[in-house]
Amino acid sequence: MGRWEPDARGRLEAAALALYGEHGFEQTTVAEIAKRAGLTERTFFRHFADKREVLFWGAGTLQDFLVSAVAGAPDSAAPIDAVAAALEAVGPLFAERREGARQRQAVIAANAELRERELIKLASLASAIAGALRRRGVADPAASLAAEAGIAVFRIAFERWIKDTSPRDLQYFIRESLDELKAVTAGR
Amino acid sequence: MGRWEPDARGRLEAAALALYGEHGFEQTTVAEIAKRAGLTERTFFRHFADKREVLFWGAGTLQDFLVSAVAGAPDSAAPIDAVAAALEAVGPLFAERREGARQRQAVIAANAELRERELIKLASLASAIAGALRRRGVADPAASLAAEAGIAVFRIAFERWIKDTSPRDLQYFIRESLDELKAVTAGR
Repeated sequence: MGRWEPDARGRLEAAALALYGEHGFEQTTVAEIAKRAGLTERTFFRHFADKREVLFWGAGTLQDFLVSAVAGAPDSAAPIDAVAAALEAVGPLFAERREGARQRQAVIAANAELRERELIKLASLASAIAGALRRRGVADPAASLAAEAGIAVFRIAFERWIKDTSPRDLQYFIRESLDELKAVTAGR
Repeated sequence: MGRWEPDARGRLEAAALALYGEHGFEQTTVAEIAKRAGLTERTFFRHFADKREVLFWGAGTLQDFLVSAVAGAPDSAAPIDAVAAALEAVGPLFAERREGARQRQAVIAANAELRERELIKLASLASAIAGALRRRGVADPAASLAAEAGIAVFRIAFERWIKDTSPRDLQYFIRESLDELKAVTAGR
């Protein structure tokens, strides 16, 4: 563990995203990622199980964060408001990472296996949020529907945010998409 | 092509679902399915590309049906109502198939790869419905949100229907889940 270690993960991630974008995910090897980052393969495997994990390592953290935020919403909050507050609270975690998120999304969009993995990740998030709502005493199907609706809002907001070039933050797009969902389900 | 051919697909499907339930999807071979159905492997492969397709062959038909139904909704219908009408119109297609749907769902729930395939199928349906809404002149994100919300409603309604033991039909659960989604997004 050298002095540079605290940065190793970030450097590996940046190198991997650049290479996946340049040559495709399939074509990129761990050796190339390590080389581009100026690190060893051994260091790569200290941080990531494989090259796919570079794209998905944040999923567990995101899930834990959302579950805690739903659990911590005021008792009086309606299910959709507890979910919305949790999603908005996620926004700042991505604040400095729009360019990385953009690169990641392009890599995933270009690869069927990665698109599947992303779908599974989102389904797990919805399922975890539904569980957190049930623990708040929300019955089904309301818990599942609020969770699924929340994840649809998040996914669509995220896509709009990374395509956007203004300084508007992810929270803005989450609020916008949620308002749009409310209008849509109200039949407008 | 013998006289029994019109029934071959249905017999193969019933045999496959029974075997997947008894021994697991992974453990079942095409030879066993054909034998149980009293048919040859050759006949199996005339109807299905592989043993997974027995579980997913209806997806294309379902998608075409939903897309046509969304396209055919009255011009005045709000996006969510066009989607809801399309989903309800699907109900009768499943009317006589609750037991088969129940078996299929249990097989899918027991296998990670099949769960992934099912997620992909649902994401494709949502994407196709969003496309049909855009062709009706619905802008994004409304088109995507109405489609995703509709698929969430359908998935949850379907689960409730196959667990239910009353004679209530799938349409009933679709209307119930949609009403619940409306209540949830309205913050109730």
